[in-house]
Amino acid sequence: MGKEAKLQELKTILAEITDLTAAGGLLGWDQQVNMPPGGAEARGNQLGTLQRLIHDRMVSDEMGRLLEELKPYAETLDPASAEACMIRVTARDHDKELSVPGEFVVEMNQVQALAYQAWVEARQKSDFSIFRPHMEKVVELAHRYVGFFPPAEHPYDRLLDNFEPGMKTSEVKAIFDAVRPKQVELIKAIAKKPQVDDSFLHQAFDPQKQWAFGEEVITKFGYDWNRGRQDKAPHPFTQDISVDDVRITTRVDPNFLNMMLFGTMHEAGHAMYGQGHAHELERTTLATGASLAVHESQSRMWENLVGRSLPFWEHFYPRLQEIFPQLNNVPLKKFYQGINKVQPSLIRVEADEATYNMHIMLRLEIEIALVEGKVAAKDLPEVWNAKMQDYLGVVPPNDARGVLQDVHWSSGMLGYFSTYALGNLISAQLWEKINQDIPDLPDQIRAGKFDALLGWLREKVHRHGRKFEPQTLVQMVTGSKIEPAPYLRYLNKKFGEIYGL
Amino acid sequence: MGKEAKLQELKTILAEITDLTAAGGLLGWDQQVNMPPGGAEARGNQLGTLQRLIHDRMVSDEMGRLLEELKPYAETLDPASAEACMIRVTARDHDKELSVPGEFVVEMNQVQALAYQAWVEARQKSDFSIFRPHMEKVVELAHRYVGFFPPAEHPYDRLLDNFEPGMKTSEVKAIFDAVRPKQVELIKAIAKKPQVDDSFLHQAFDPQKQWAFGEEVITKFGYDWNRGRQDKAPHPFTQDISVDDVRITTRVDPNFLNMMLFGTMHEAGHAMYGQGHAHELERTTLATGASLAVHESQSRMWENLVGRSLPFWEHFYPRLQEIFPQLNNVPLKKFYQGINKVQPSLIRVEADEATYNMHIMLRLEIEIALVEGKVAAKDLPEVWNAKMQDYLGVVPPNDARGVLQDVHWSSGMLGYFSTYALGNLISAQLWEKINQDIPDLPDQIRAGKFDALLGWLREKVHRHGRKFEPQTLVQMVTGSKIEPAPYLRYLNKKFGEIYGL
Repeated sequence: MGKEAKLQELKTILAEITDLTAAGGLLGWDQQVNMPPGGAEARGNQLGTLQRLIHDRMVSDEMGRLLEELKPYAETLDPASAEACMIRVTARDHDKELSVPGEFVVEMNQVQALAYQAWVEARQKSDFSIFRPHMEKVVELAHRYVGFFPPAEHPYDRLLDNFEPGMKTSEVKAIFDAVRPKQVELIKAIAKKPQVDDSFLHQAFDPQKQWAFGEEVITKFGYDWNRGRQDKAPHPFTQDISVDDVRITTRVDPNFLNMMLFGTMHEAGHAMYGQGHAHELERTTLATGASLAVHESQSRMWENLVGRSLPFWEHFYPRLQEIFPQLNNVPLKKFYQGINKVQPSLIRVEADEATYNMHIMLRLEIEIALVEGKVAAKDLPEVWNAKMQDYLGVVPPNDARGVLQDVHWSSGMLGYFSTYALGNLISAQLWEKINQDIPDLPDQIRAGKFDALLGWLREKVHRHGRKFEPQTLVQMVTGSKIEPAPYLRYLNKKFGEIYGL
Repeated sequence: MGKEAKLQELKTILAEITDLTAAGGLLGWDQQVNMPPGGAEARGNQLGTLQRLIHDRMVSDEMGRLLEELKPYAETLDPASAEACMIRVTARDHDKELSVPGEFVVEMNQVQALAYQAWVEARQKSDFSIFRPHMEKVVELAHRYVGFFPPAEHPYDRLLDNFEPGMKTSEVKAIFDAVRPKQVELIKAIAKKPQVDDSFLHQAFDPQKQWAFGEEVITKFGYDWNRGRQDKAPHPFTQDISVDDVRITTRVDPNFLNMMLFGTMHEAGHAMYGQGHAHELERTTLATGASLAVHESQSRMWENLVGRSLPFWEHFYPRLQEIFPQLNNVPLKKFYQGINKVQPSLIRVEADEATYNMHIMLRLEIEIALVEGKVAAKDLPEVWNAKMQDYLGVVPPNDARGVLQDVHWSSGMLGYFSTYALGNLISAQLWEKINQDIPDLPDQIRAGKFDALLGWLREKVHRHGRKFEPQTLVQMVTGSKIEPAPYLRYLNKKFGEIYGL
């Protein structure tokens, strides 16, 4: 069999894997959007079967043999070609899945199921001791998981790699070590200034009108409704089913504008990324985002760099006031300041741009310490509260609003959190480059025009899908790897102006 | 490996097949209810992959070996046990799928795709010649399909068997030969009587109120919303995803009450059947209906025997009038007569109870003649129109409203139509038995109580799923195979009263 035929064979298997993944994606979307409660048990079985079939195909001998035979061929190709990337990325996925024994995966699923239940109860009762034994198990599993692979520079690298392929703990640490003192400094400086008013955001806003305004905004952004849809969900998310079917969900608070507004823009940012993968990548392992951080850079860019900017509101605020006349007595500048209010707070998902990263750094430091064995699960509440005091000057009154606030650990996930902060950094880094390439971007935004921006993102980021690792992609596009300076510049300039620093 | 272990192995494979089938079911449902238009091509790939995986599992050597080994074991079991039925039914499915070459299935899918497109265009232009070459291909495929199996009593048996397992053409012919003259006689007698008025059904009815009334009705029927939901769809259908997730769709005509009303009851009838399969049958080949005719007996019973009955409206009409005060000047009796108006017409899906079966018999006779080679595809418009004149005294003004009205043939489906008429017959046959077992059923319906009726259907029909072939099931429940007498008695009594025959 010639190389071309082997490549075709690999594509056939990947097409099958992708179709099964898409089916699983729809089942998951439906579970959160449409499924009647009674369907839950059967849905669990259906998803389990699909996951098993996908795994079986990914670790099959046939796949291993094909990849071994194709690796030398890939060396002869342009390394940036879809074929070369497909072989490289698939080989990486294959090796990784093959390294983890099936029994371990089964055990992890069981631990997760119990840990999640315990977390729900622990958070309800604000009692960490209920979750503690499960967290201990999660940490133990993380240690064992790391042990399935050859030693890395740092054991946490293996966990991080599941979300940021190729990224090292030392890189993330270096980045955050540079960010932390500057961001703390900024927060302290803001705290000394008079606080801005955002009370007008907390009043009754008709949910249907909110929804319609959100649709109007993301339609102008360029979210393609012919290849997507928006539904309500208690925990908003974006679901890729194919490049031509990328769905968003959102939620509406009838007494607070921000939830719908910035949530919708955030999810649309994710979704436009998904809608922008090149069609040649379809039905391969490459038709998805480069990493979670790169994905988050897209959602955060539309939500914050665009959606919380003054030019954006110069265009949209009159329309918002038209829909909600109760804002007529709130001048644009006051509105802009209000949606950008900085206030150290307890809950990550409610944090503003200036304080958000501090929540992430705290979690990352704790995770690394857990993996290094320097912190034990039992010490988590104490460590958490001490760091909150250090970084944000606030201390949770109970564990529900502290160490128990996030679902991630109960899903057995260590390694995820840093992607949120890295996404913020990447978004600002891309933004500086975009503004060099499109010098009149602020004017375009002020005129409600987003096609040049979306076109740039399509060309530089979206179409590549998962062809490149995140650091490679960021380097290709901006000329350097992920770096903290642009985000710090962005924060200092923006909040310097708002708070008069 | 002991028999128990082998049975477990079979169950494991069937669970996987059922999960993949459920995923395919959800993908299909979503395609008609939620999918953005752009997603169509990828959805086709996804469904194709699932179908192929299901087929591969069903015809696998492993499945064949297991079934061979388990058949003698099944002989030792109670033949009505879930295990014995599962082995028997699965062996039948396996043998059947194995008989049809994979290339044929691929060819059939291609022919179907083109035939469907041609049918859409032909119907639009009302030009049978556009569809004719495709119909010839469909008939040729039907002949070749029949040829994959050992000769049966009649070649059409092989096609019928795909929808009514075990049913013979000779049985269906005998039934319809008994029905036809009596039903023609009834229609002629009605035609001589003064026509009833149904003009009040054709006026503006608020769509949301219609929807809410439909929900009210089927909630009283016992449709379980915890295990189902209702959505809008252009062509209403019911989708089983699991026993605990059976969804219905409906459509609303803002100027005609019947479409929503009887459509909703019809689909709820299908859905309550699906919600009623015994949980022990879940994740096996048995957790579905016995046949299309038995399924149709359930939908038709709730739609017609219940929903178009006088006791039903004695209960619901005051509520309907409350919602739609424009009906206040229409007395109950007049309303009842209106919704039961008999009028020979051109379109099957719009036909009333008295004329509906004639549409079916015409199609069945044509299909059998096509398979016997006595009629050629090119003769279809002529044969169609002649039979319409014979049976209903109306002749289509064009092919769009005649031979091109149904989608079925364009999907390569021969053998389907009779299930609609058989469903009507079975519904009346069950109804006579139910009324013997629950003598005060009309009073219960008059009081809006349906739990005894649904309980009877659950016990006698629903819980068995696909354990028994349709004739076996009907015999078990009513004491005789499918017979025409109860339906004729029902029609004669009901329309005798309405039209004063």
